[in-house]
Amino acid sequence: MNITCINNDLEAMRLALEWAAKGLYTTSPNPHIGCVIVKDGIVIGEGVTQPAGQDHAEIQALKDARRRGVDVRGATAYVTLEPCSHYGRTPPCCDALVGAGLARVVAAMDDPNPLVAGQGLARLAAAGIEVSSGLLADEAYELNIGFFSRMRRQLPWVRLKTAASLDGMTALYNGSSQWITGDAARADGHAWRARACAILTGIGTVKADDPQLNVRAVATPRQPHRIVIDSRLDIDPAAKVLAGGGALVVAAVRDHEREAVLRAGGTEVITLPNAQGKVDLPELMRELGRRQVNELHVEAGTKLNGSLVRERCVDELLVYLAPALIGDAQGMFALPALTDLARKHTLRFHQVQAVGDDLRILARFTDQA
Amino acid sequence: MNITCINNDLEAMRLALEWAAKGLYTTSPNPHIGCVIVKDGIVIGEGVTQPAGQDHAEIQALKDARRRGVDVRGATAYVTLEPCSHYGRTPPCCDALVGAGLARVVAAMDDPNPLVAGQGLARLAAAGIEVSSGLLADEAYELNIGFFSRMRRQLPWVRLKTAASLDGMTALYNGSSQWITGDAARADGHAWRARACAILTGIGTVKADDPQLNVRAVATPRQPHRIVIDSRLDIDPAAKVLAGGGALVVAAVRDHEREAVLRAGGTEVITLPNAQGKVDLPELMRELGRRQVNELHVEAGTKLNGSLVRERCVDELLVYLAPALIGDAQGMFALPALTDLARKHTLRFHQVQAVGDDLRILARFTDQA
Repeated sequence: MNITCINNDLEAMRLALEWAAKGLYTTSPNPHIGCVIVKDGIVIGEGVTQPAGQDHAEIQALKDARRRGVDVRGATAYVTLEPCSHYGRTPPCCDALVGAGLARVVAAMDDPNPLVAGQGLARLAAAGIEVSSGLLADEAYELNIGFFSRMRRQLPWVRLKTAASLDGMTALYNGSSQWITGDAARADGHAWRARACAILTGIGTVKADDPQLNVRAVATPRQPHRIVIDSRLDIDPAAKVLAGGGALVVAAVRDHEREAVLRAGGTEVITLPNAQGKVDLPELMRELGRRQVNELHVEAGTKLNGSLVRERCVDELLVYLAPALIGDAQGMFALPALTDLARKHTLRFHQVQAVGDDLRILARFTDQA
Repeated sequence: MNITCINNDLEAMRLALEWAAKGLYTTSPNPHIGCVIVKDGIVIGEGVTQPAGQDHAEIQALKDARRRGVDVRGATAYVTLEPCSHYGRTPPCCDALVGAGLARVVAAMDDPNPLVAGQGLARLAAAGIEVSSGLLADEAYELNIGFFSRMRRQLPWVRLKTAASLDGMTALYNGSSQWITGDAARADGHAWRARACAILTGIGTVKADDPQLNVRAVATPRQPHRIVIDSRLDIDPAAKVLAGGGALVVAAVRDHEREAVLRAGGTEVITLPNAQGKVDLPELMRELGRRQVNELHVEAGTKLNGSLVRERCVDELLVYLAPALIGDAQGMFALPALTDLARKHTLRFHQVQAVGDDLRILARFTDQA
């Protein structure tokens, strides 16, 4: 077995974050947390949250130490989130850490749920364990941004993916859009799909492209849920996005016959109309929060993209820019012409990275509620 | 006086490149070259090309060493371009280096003029000086990309600047475009103007914005030439771009009366029509090459931008992207709608950098002649 030496808290927490990232595709709706146990400068236990209902990271790390035959008494546990103090589907991790005789617990962040934040660490401190929180908090936050969004706002973190030429065009007027960006960007896009709890599209995209809306270009043990906005319940029951059942169609009208056909194929249908007879997008986001969707990944067309932005349902844009000029074609967002630039939607660039020959830009809205 | 120690050739050439960059705004139409003379691991002379007709960098560095009272015999000179071997407006630098008794000359690049490339180094070698070429050649090339373009292709390096929202929009339909990008991007844009030999715009921009088209946001001892594409000779003689004289107006029609008024104000007028009665843009580029324009900086509107791209007159895009969505508005390039994506214009991303809150993207065409 390899021996991993640790020189300081920062190194240990970085390793815990690496463990957390291993759960990126699997722990939904739970957060993916990493835990590393260190004694005398050597890693003696490591773990990551298992799929919902199974072990949290701390328990996995304790079991790992036991498997290695090491005594964890007096060791330090590094956890990317404050250990839980309540009975959920599993017993509280705090109790396990106390029972194991740990001397110190370092957390990257407090629990995002304001009702329980700090209680886990307080419970550990009351048992004589030295505690601290905040180390590499930003990195820990990014890994579970959707979970934090749901805990704090009861809303998913909505990430809208689009691919465009450098002059902002997503498709020709004849619908042709394959392939504006390259293979690497496509695979990267699938990795973002894979970490989402659900993928959302619109009936326009289903009719035009008949997408499967699943993860293929990267390996994942879990497929995200599929959601289609379909105000008039127009979807073809044979659409690929509905294949295998389990998809959710969101309509603005009732049509018992069509609904029955869809339901017979294993598709769930809900009706969420707004006053204009369209799907009430903000209400849908609240509904998805209730359904424990942490990260919602949107891949839709110009129209739905525009509606989601206009109704302030998007937190983040994931834009792949190709090094090409297309000219007169379909833009990225159908948004009405402004007469005053002050009314533009404002964001801030969060991250920019080369992906193959393309550029990946993450930008976050700063004018959202 | 500070003593600068040098540990190896790379450090010395980096310093020579820093000196070269000091001439970025001043040496046009000559290249800006840096020279550093090193003896016993200590810099004993430094210099940069002076404005045209005055000293080249090597002469400046030799004079600097003399001013310091140091004996240059046996020293090494690091030059960002092969020393010249011919009589131009100044005597050949090779002779000066040989005469000074240097032991070694390290050049970043050979002379780009195929007729003289290598002759300078050969002359030095023949005089018993150890020579080499190619160290940090890419960096040296970038600093004088326009000069190399003119030497190799008899054409300027054409850099087209545009500023757009993340969804690719440059202005509202009512013309409003101030300020899509921020102050830092504006200042950065002026630094790119300052290094250009000339700035080009179109009559549409002159009519809409009445720009001065000069360098204001950064300090420069030299203003680039101003060029306006004005097919029908529509320009108002009081337009700010013509102020002070010296601007060049390029028309596709003759109008002796208007030409006379413009010339009386110190404006040069030339006529370069193509078969469609517009300005012949490729021919204009050749003319600017003949006029010793190294870097041409384009700041124009959607239409001229599109024409320049369509006629393959642009080498590089300098795009400032603002973190904002504008929606339905004026795009970056007026290019005809395609029916086949394979006919898009292709580029490669050369450099991406944050500038204030905005993103600066340099992209180079890969489908040009």
